Amino acid sequence: MLIREVRVTPVAFRDPPLLNAAGVHQPWALRTIVEVVTDEGITGLGETYGDLAHLEQVRAAAARLPGLDVYALHRIYRRVADVVGANIVTDMHGLTGSSSRVKTVDRVFAAFEVACLDIQGKAAGRPVADLLGGKVRDAVPYSAYLFYKWAGHPGKPEDRFGPALDPDGIVAQARLLIGEYGFRSIKLKGGVFPPEQEAEAIQALRDAFPGLPLRLDPNAAWTVETSIRVGRALDGVLEYLEDPTPGIDGMARVAAEVPMPLATNMCVVTPEHLPAAVERRPIGVLLIDHHYWGGLVRSAHIATLCATFGIELSMHSNSHLGISLAAMTHLAAATPAITHACDTHTPWQDGQDVVAPGALRFVDGAVPVPDGPGLGVELDRDALAVMHEQYERCGIRTRDDEGYMRSFDPSFSTRRGFW
Amino acid sequence: MLIREVRVTPVAFRDPPLLNAAGVHQPWALRTIVEVVTDEGITGLGETYGDLAHLEQVRAAAARLPGLDVYALHRIYRRVADVVGANIVTDMHGLTGSSSRVKTVDRVFAAFEVACLDIQGKAAGRPVADLLGGKVRDAVPYSAYLFYKWAGHPGKPEDRFGPALDPDGIVAQARLLIGEYGFRSIKLKGGVFPPEQEAEAIQALRDAFPGLPLRLDPNAAWTVETSIRVGRALDGVLEYLEDPTPGIDGMARVAAEVPMPLATNMCVVTPEHLPAAVERRPIGVLLIDHHYWGGLVRSAHIATLCATFGIELSMHSNSHLGISLAAMTHLAAATPAITHACDTHTPWQDGQDVVAPGALRFVDGAVPVPDGPGLGVELDRDALAVMHEQYERCGIRTRDDEGYMRSFDPSFSTRRGFW
Ligand SMILES: [Mg+2]
Ligand SMILES: [Mg+2]
Repeated sequence: MLIREVRVTPVAFRDPPLLNAAGVHQPWALRTIVEVVTDEGITGLGETYGDLAHLEQVRAAAARLPGLDVYALHRIYRRVADVVGANIVTDMHGLTGSSSRVKTVDRVFAAFEVACLDIQGKAAGRPVADLLGGKVRDAVPYSAYLFYKWAGHPGKPEDRFGPALDPDGIVAQARLLIGEYGFRSIKLKGGVFPPEQEAEAIQALRDAFPGLPLRLDPNAAWTVETSIRVGRALDGVLEYLEDPTPGIDGMARVAAEVPMPLATNMCVVTPEHLPAAVERRPIGVLLIDHHYWGGLVRSAHIATLCATFGIELSMHSNSHLGISLAAMTHLAAATPAITHACDTHTPWQDGQDVVAPGALRFVDGAVPVPDGPGLGVELDRDALAVMHEQYERCGIRTRDDEGYMRSFDPSFSTRRGFW
Repeated sequence: MLIREVRVTPVAFRDPPLLNAAGVHQPWALRTIVEVVTDEGITGLGETYGDLAHLEQVRAAAARLPGLDVYALHRIYRRVADVVGANIVTDMHGLTGSSSRVKTVDRVFAAFEVACLDIQGKAAGRPVADLLGGKVRDAVPYSAYLFYKWAGHPGKPEDRFGPALDPDGIVAQARLLIGEYGFRSIKLKGGVFPPEQEAEAIQALRDAFPGLPLRLDPNAAWTVETSIRVGRALDGVLEYLEDPTPGIDGMARVAAEVPMPLATNMCVVTPEHLPAAVERRPIGVLLIDHHYWGGLVRSAHIATLCATFGIELSMHSNSHLGISLAAMTHLAAATPAITHACDTHTPWQDGQDVVAPGALRFVDGAVPVPDGPGLGVELDRDALAVMHEQYERCGIRTRDDEGYMRSFDPSFSTRRGFW
């Protein structure tokens, strides 16, 4: 079952002004849609980042894949590694930690791997979850991913989510998302306001939603001392505290002093970090993300590794579309060690998608695993064309939360280790 | 694709009097053949240990699998775990290290997992290696697995391999096996004679086969001090020294003092051992064995874990038949981190098999990966019937190298930590 063609299409979709330690989301979020087509005419879908430097690597790799077998994942990986060569692609926003050659290869490979698994599943008439050992849960719980946000992009009308700049705004946002999706756990993206203000928002969420697990993610905006102080103050309130401070060293110092587990998608983000993660125990929870951990199978391997060393698992999310949501859902459904509700940006996507409606839905905050073959989602070609046209016209080629923020506040700089 | 029936057939085949630290191989080696049959009539094959306590667990689990899906490997694992309950099955010979509940479940599950992957491969029309990411090598190199041995079982005629009780006998055995199979690396099972004699045999192999990597496996028969002394004396001669002494502590002390990597299939044999293996560095090479590491997929996970922590991989073998050789070959072919030639007892099987001839062969010491669907081997029902009849009549129900040795030498006891 050989790869005949690989199509790579960058897309853009509207994104609200979500605040974080790196700045604020631009009006358009970028993604890249990958279609792998076999000699038998089966098409598999993948989705990955849209930043230009990454897109160029994805395109270069895509051109070298025809002729390879969709089951030859190790060989495809080596081909991608050859194409990437010594290049290291870095996220400008830095929200998924440091970059390396391995991480660059893993990120490029992942989109193709998902597409090949989609094909393998379609060929076998089985959902991707079955290629990963089968479902251990019929639906994957996600968390309500709250953001501080402006009412709308500056100079534009207020969006339907409205402003969230204080505890009341955050609680209102939680009510909205939970009302629409039924989420049963809550994550607040922090690193925007001084830590005590964000801790107040967490307390307000605790009061408003007494039964729901809560998480706070300042994206490494705090010092070690602040992290310890705030962590202790939130004893009994947080399920876990995510990336309070930068780096494995700093996280390990915090972890030793706060009562709740720390989680990360910033200090342990590629296999090279795992030995230190095991030795120095900076985290109790790894937020796995197949987009940069090298695909679904490799993420399952990493989950076994984490479970072996007593590290629990949740799942990380960047702004994404339905192909990624399907892939994340199959992975989490078939990975016993992913025991925490996963993150998703789905609510902020607000109905925009490249996949045809119907296959993905939320029931009580969880996505039932699509039971069609492969990922169980189909491309909506009209939507893809529209979103690609949006990409062509939006003028954004690389996500730059900081630059966008500085266009309104020239004094802004990213908050890493700031408070 | 639901399991309709699971057939479990114990078999016995003739085994030469191979000496080791636990005693000597009995005249019959035991295995259990598993056949999983789906509602669509596809049959998958598995092979596992034949010892009675294990066989009873396999039978009990087999009775509980009908109705489960062959893709639902996590669910099958849980079903097996339920059946095993609190039981811990221990090897009387102790040659694969300590036992635990997890290891017991992993061993029972593995035979079914291989059979289910055989079915998945057949259903997809793809070799099992393709379900593991595809081949990274077209043929899997195995080592010539040399044993000290008697000329024949006491009271029986000399077997065709003849005696090997000194360096000359070992070199002659190596010439025989290499002549027949083309092996390009050599492993000597030690723990039989005083260490200096076995080191002499290694030196004789080095002289006779200057280019071939050499390994020595005393099955933990030595003290730490002896291991260090012999290890240093074999500097530059051994590819690795396998299980010179018992336990992670002892192995770590030896590893710190000898020039070559240590390998194990005794002190790190289940996930519970891996944290200590990473922290205390007793080994440089893990001998993976899907029969007790929980199947092929789980072995691939463990391989990723080892690679992440700088532990290299080879593969362990017990006496086995062609179903296991096929499974081992698919796993090693599709696991990039298995970079050392694997062990196999195939030569000692001496043509006896439950699989039809033709699918498995050795070329220059390597087994070309069968390219038929699934494992690529088919059951020879006549051979299975004969071997089952042998099982019924042989009188052996549990491998007992020590008891058999003591029937000739009542003073014998296992050599663990002896020299
Ligand atoms: Mg985060
Ligand atoms: Mg051994």
